[in-house]
Amino acid sequence: MTWTDLPPDQRANHLAELGQQLRVDAVRCAAEAGSGHPTSAMSAADLVAVLLGTQLRYAFDRPDDPHNDEFIISKGHASPLLYAALRAAGAITESELLTYRKLGSRLEGHPTPRLPWVKVATGSLGQGLPVGVGAALTAARLDRLPYRVWVLCGDSELAEGSMWEAFAHAGHERLANLTAIVDVNRLGQRGPTRLEWDTAAYARRISAFGWHTIEIDGHDVDQIDRAYQEATATTDAPTAILARTRKGKGAPQVEDQNGYHGKPLADAATVIAELGGARQVTVPVAGPVAEDQQPHTFPVRGQLSLPEYEVGESVPTRDAFGAALAALGDAYGDVVALDGEVSDSTRSGVFEASHPDRFFQFYIAEQQLVAAAIAMQARGWRPYLATFAAFLTRAYDFLRMAAISRANLRVVGSHAGVAIGEDGPSQMGLEDLAAFRAIHGSTVLHPCDANQTTALVRSMADRAGICYLRTSRGGTPVIYQPGEQFPIGGSRLLRSSPDDQVTIVGTGVTVHSALAAADQLAERGVNARVIDAYSVKPIDADALRTAARETARLLTVEDHWPEGGLGDAVLEVFADGGVDLPRIRKLAVRTMPGSAHPEQQLHAAGLDADSITRAAAELTLE
Amino acid sequence: MTWTDLPPDQRANHLAELGQQLRVDAVRCAAEAGSGHPTSAMSAADLVAVLLGTQLRYAFDRPDDPHNDEFIISKGHASPLLYAALRAAGAITESELLTYRKLGSRLEGHPTPRLPWVKVATGSLGQGLPVGVGAALTAARLDRLPYRVWVLCGDSELAEGSMWEAFAHAGHERLANLTAIVDVNRLGQRGPTRLEWDTAAYARRISAFGWHTIEIDGHDVDQIDRAYQEATATTDAPTAILARTRKGKGAPQVEDQNGYHGKPLADAATVIAELGGARQVTVPVAGPVAEDQQPHTFPVRGQLSLPEYEVGESVPTRDAFGAALAALGDAYGDVVALDGEVSDSTRSGVFEASHPDRFFQFYIAEQQLVAAAIAMQARGWRPYLATFAAFLTRAYDFLRMAAISRANLRVVGSHAGVAIGEDGPSQMGLEDLAAFRAIHGSTVLHPCDANQTTALVRSMADRAGICYLRTSRGGTPVIYQPGEQFPIGGSRLLRSSPDDQVTIVGTGVTVHSALAAADQLAERGVNARVIDAYSVKPIDADALRTAARETARLLTVEDHWPEGGLGDAVLEVFADGGVDLPRIRKLAVRTMPGSAHPEQQLHAAGLDADSITRAAAELTLE
Repeated sequence: MTWTDLPPDQRANHLAELGQQLRVDAVRCAAEAGSGHPTSAMSAADLVAVLLGTQLRYAFDRPDDPHNDEFIISKGHASPLLYAALRAAGAITESELLTYRKLGSRLEGHPTPRLPWVKVATGSLGQGLPVGVGAALTAARLDRLPYRVWVLCGDSELAEGSMWEAFAHAGHERLANLTAIVDVNRLGQRGPTRLEWDTAAYARRISAFGWHTIEIDGHDVDQIDRAYQEATATTDAPTAILARTRKGKGAPQVEDQNGYHGKPLADAATVIAELGGARQVTVPVAGPVAEDQQPHTFPVRGQLSLPEYEVGESVPTRDAFGAALAALGDAYGDVVALDGEVSDSTRSGVFEASHPDRFFQFYIAEQQLVAAAIAMQARGWRPYLATFAAFLTRAYDFLRMAAISRANLRVVGSHAGVAIGEDGPSQMGLEDLAAFRAIHGSTVLHPCDANQTTALVRSMADRAGICYLRTSRGGTPVIYQPGEQFPIGGSRLLRSSPDDQVTIVGTGVTVHSALAAADQLAERGVNARVIDAYSVKPIDADALRTAARETARLLTVEDHWPEGGLGDAVLEVFADGGVDLPRIRKLAVRTMPGSAHPEQQLHAAGLDADSITRAAAELTLE
Repeated sequence: MTWTDLPPDQRANHLAELGQQLRVDAVRCAAEAGSGHPTSAMSAADLVAVLLGTQLRYAFDRPDDPHNDEFIISKGHASPLLYAALRAAGAITESELLTYRKLGSRLEGHPTPRLPWVKVATGSLGQGLPVGVGAALTAARLDRLPYRVWVLCGDSELAEGSMWEAFAHAGHERLANLTAIVDVNRLGQRGPTRLEWDTAAYARRISAFGWHTIEIDGHDVDQIDRAYQEATATTDAPTAILARTRKGKGAPQVEDQNGYHGKPLADAATVIAELGGARQVTVPVAGPVAEDQQPHTFPVRGQLSLPEYEVGESVPTRDAFGAALAALGDAYGDVVALDGEVSDSTRSGVFEASHPDRFFQFYIAEQQLVAAAIAMQARGWRPYLATFAAFLTRAYDFLRMAAISRANLRVVGSHAGVAIGEDGPSQMGLEDLAAFRAIHGSTVLHPCDANQTTALVRSMADRAGICYLRTSRGGTPVIYQPGEQFPIGGSRLLRSSPDDQVTIVGTGVTVHSALAAADQLAERGVNARVIDAYSVKPIDADALRTAARETARLLTVEDHWPEGGLGDAVLEVFADGGVDLPRIRKLAVRTMPGSAHPEQQLHAAGLDADSITRAAAELTLE
């Protein structure tokens, strides 16, 4: 029996008692840790108590059950509240609760998937709601199950643009299975928020984006209870509940006062006593609904049949990406594609044409784009998201956090480097290799031809972690046969002889300049080895060590700023303390480009065949 | 005489004619270039014609005049319209117009400050309006001049969260000197926008954020004219004009049709003829207002007097930053500080307390935060902006674009690395060194003690480009005397002897672990040199080369992921093709941290003294 079956008075008493227990537990665990954000937990305790006691449908013993509701604590610093709720639900013990923030504990300062009930890390504000929008889309359009998505938001984080990307998208998609619960406690980290307790102003804004809104007193369990019922009864729009609350509620010394953000309470024992002491309430959380209904699967059209390109053709690698993605969609029903209103350029539009049900348009909202992919992979789908490499910088915080979420994401950045030509530097991905290399556990791939792209797009499907593929705008000659294998972590030796004097390491478009340079060098009597480092991370350390041993000189060539890209990846191989560094020189983009033809850009940046030839020749003389 | 003095009919005729000329010129220059976005220019041509002919107050012969209005083309791909307007204003010649997108031209695919009338680069959508908000704040609160800020926005870019950060901030600050002109042409890159021509929906949303809104037909010059008058007459709120337009207006073959984004017109000559051919209208733009009024200056309190710390004290470098910034504020009236609602943690609150007039609170909206700083420096102010290092990833696209804007920005990221302790990985800046190194022309600094921090905060004030300073949360011992000099590009040799066997290179918190390790190594009979690489970019190549020559082995130690940070910066020194290369090993954070005490974190990451000692000892044996 759940509390919803109780008479109203009893039910309200239980909920209020649970709220107090959550407060006490938040205060206790922060006191034990000597740090944390108890006051931010206390303001939202009643909101979470009522959710747990009346609406949440969740099997805590089966956190991976696809029928479970999704509960996301977007204000991740209120983690003590989540952990207190997990104890109240019987998911963790009281003694584990008190390990909060300690070495080795699953109960981190901000929630991460080290806890099986947490699918997505939060703690960088403004991310939980966009992820929740992705989860609600997943429920409605992919899983096609009636689970609901509940997101507890802070009021401070409503200043983040990403929240409004989420409001806009959920309103547009009429995601009635989504409820945002906003804990309007009026106080941020260093003082009052912009709107303080003006819940009407929040409601005006959010409703203008197509949401149903409800304003309540966030400490009145009856009002909360009714608001949740109204949210679940609303079938044509997502609902936002604007709950007026008091930060530190229940601790008169700090309640609604500035200066107590992110600090354990000074006299925790007294506060706990005032709150009525520790309790042992266990809440009977209702199990998920529609358990007999399996998640939707999309029909497949047979075996994987990847597109093939003839050697010598000129094909942009972005075209090969689009075609390969569509082919993957034919063969695998769990592959989905996400766009930020540039599918015409990235070529993910090819997937859209053949798999419209599994294609998601987020318009120019890269943060929401990445957040939705994170949500989809958390439910077992295989998302590929694509936009211009340059515009992925817009979502760098989400990509960084995705690694903390242990997400498996396939990210494709098109229009890389100066080779895009006339559009100029704002459109050139020139820091993408550095940014993605610096994401924990990431993979960074940069193919140079269409058949290689196809193979790598296929390999990404099964890769764990954040896997980035960089594509080019213009055509490059096909140099590999269809069906050739390109293992992640490998490379290709394109020119070699027993008496090579220098190794040129290229990736993507620079592989072709490197080959042309090798021809020029051969005419001058210089034997140059050429390596195609299509896997920038992990890089092929063995091949590079062999090249260093045999040719003693390495020249790296990349259409990227000098920092953090291919050159640094190659250098890293020799930074293991084992041997002396070989002679290495990096060619990269060192001046700010303007507009020009692609060939002019590569020449100006010193990345064309002539420049490589000159640099390689110099290197062999040194 | 300007057109505003003409009788209404004549005025309307002139404006309509000018609109046609702007269209023709956009079509011409894109045709000449063979690329570009003429259709996106044509929809907004009348909007810009009326602005130029009636409202803009600008001395085109004095683009740096502080009284000039600010005109920002947020939809930067409509650059042909800007260039056509510059020709109409007599700022550039017809022959320069036709250099659009060609090698060496100032007229790039997207506008950059290579043109003196462009103060801020656009082209990554969603940035012009936040920059415009910064410009309007600069006018109102810093310059205190009556110039106005006009921002031409696209409708597609209203999907970007950054636009809503801007709407929220401008509404909150009641920036009546700001007008957003939204070119609602219904069509994005790959199809219709979310709201198409529903200008009422846009108006509802924007007005909910405290703006005055006006809906008009964006091809009716009278309506546009009246809307601009209404905007300038509105004194208590910013104004947004939602102008319904047709993409490709004037070219019936493509007008309001999908599939013509970012392409020159197929039959330009015919279109030009249909538009009435090339024209030679020159518009008499009115000069700026209040030219006798000088920009406001803030009184200073005398000579610079920087705080000083005693050797041996334990002081967090973030504390030293806050105190130094306040001292700079005392001495220099052009220093301003910007916060993203974390001033209590970054310590920029110290500046706020002493200089409230020059302190700007942007709440948790990092994109607006960076955009405003870009705008302020464009008007000659010296902004320092600070937030957690981790949260600067939120604004990475803005920082990347700031380099294209040739901006001088001082950016401070606090709470760097695992050394923050219990808060866990979401709050740890672990990719910031990589991200900032990969920004063109950037400077990256990471001090290890309070006096060094003070000196570097001072040096940043005069540094060109994007200058990043990384601070730490916890206290570190003061090891330098007050007043010591720390030139950018330098380093400090903290331990050395003629027979050193290994050099340990640290930065920030790891300098202290490195010193402790050197002591441990000395006990074992190993002489270790210690270098404090406080300047990560540019790095002190001479000192590192000397160390390599004299000790043959380098161990780099950084509280950062292995990619793109200190280790890669040190390796880069030896990637010049030269000889005498050392053995190098990098210590960095290689596993995902959880929550723990700072010392436990450093130990777990292998960055404490014991780990360094072990690694250094191994390196000397290899």
